[in-house]
Amino acid sequence: MKMTENSRRGFLRSTACLIAASTPAVRAADTEPNVLGPWPDYSPQIGMLVSEMTWMRTKVVHTAKGLTTEQLDYLLDEKANRIGALLMHLAATERIYQLMTFDNVNANSVSDHALFKDWKTAMVLGEPARKTIKGNKLEYYLNALEEVRGKTLNEFRKRDDKWLQAVDKSWPWGPTNNLCKWFHVCEHESHHNGQISLIKGRTPGAKPENG
Amino acid sequence: MKMTENSRRGFLRSTACLIAASTPAVRAADTEPNVLGPWPDYSPQIGMLVSEMTWMRTKVVHTAKGLTTEQLDYLLDEKANRIGALLMHLAATERIYQLMTFDNVNANSVSDHALFKDWKTAMVLGEPARKTIKGNKLEYYLNALEEVRGKTLNEFRKRDDKWLQAVDKSWPWGPTNNLCKWFHVCEHESHHNGQISLIKGRTPGAKPENG
Repeated sequence: MKMTENSRRGFLRSTACLIAASTPAVRAADTEPNVLGPWPDYSPQIGMLVSEMTWMRTKVVHTAKGLTTEQLDYLLDEKANRIGALLMHLAATERIYQLMTFDNVNANSVSDHALFKDWKTAMVLGEPARKTIKGNKLEYYLNALEEVRGKTLNEFRKRDDKWLQAVDKSWPWGPTNNLCKWFHVCEHESHHNGQISLIKGRTPGAKPENG
Repeated sequence: MKMTENSRRGFLRSTACLIAASTPAVRAADTEPNVLGPWPDYSPQIGMLVSEMTWMRTKVVHTAKGLTTEQLDYLLDEKANRIGALLMHLAATERIYQLMTFDNVNANSVSDHALFKDWKTAMVLGEPARKTIKGNKLEYYLNALEEVRGKTLNEFRKRDDKWLQAVDKSWPWGPTNNLCKWFHVCEHESHHNGQISLIKGRTPGAKPENG
């Protein structure tokens, strides 16, 4: 939908009024994990995103719960990625988005950045990951995910909705904002969680899951 | 994080001020598909969700683009779901959430509701879906997805952030709100998109994709 500058300003004003008028409803998520929305300690829109990212992460951890090293290392076929490598890929993805959005590292060169050296294999997946990311217990992957997430939340707390909405015209997939970049980090966890769920159902002795 | 009623009220007030003060930044997504945020015609938080759901859907359509009936019908193994059935499952999921959240049909009985009769096989997947959801062109599935989405957007336009945030204590996964229910519908598309991508890379003659 195309808006003129005037209609956009009008929309912004009415949005502000709507939010102000309905504030008791536009409230923080309680301690309930399944009540999403703005969160204390974060700007309103960042809080809403954080509540979604936090909810999403619980689903990944739930799928991975109880997996043995043998299951984490299982290969569906010679082209497949191991579940352990997919979990590490999620941590690597979050790390690369930290560098790009918090540290302003250029998207076209970030994968060769010194601070990303240890993550590159997990990011790229494929044969190098199949050869090297294996033999670990579940805690190894969960700790990596948790450590990276801690840093993300720390950085989010320092920022506001203006930062989240600022348009970046130089991004490889076209003009975009930090909300879109971080929403992608979030839905990307679900993308691979679907694959992990499918592979898990085919590991030796596993109960098949949906799909 | 636990909030007292007073600190919660304080948070709500400061949230309102923050949003009001930073309104020029908390702006509508432009016509750019990768700029997410509040959207005209929707309440602010519903608009943000709609921008995410719309973005997510483009990813599913992108993965499915160009798939032949043979690829849509391909079975990875005897336990797998066909790509076509997974696409129909996404439409069925959106339909069931419409009934539960717009029409207040009880979550425990909705799958047997008369209005859900035609969707049940796609919702449940497994053997009945393997037997019956096949032989269709891609357009068949994309049309179903688009038709259901149109209804969702119509209903969202009639509602506000108070509705999105209202807590439902009777939900099977525990106390939750409509934002959480619909965020799940959104990330669920990514979950199965990951599986579709994995299966697509293994259809006869296909170029393998990541995973």
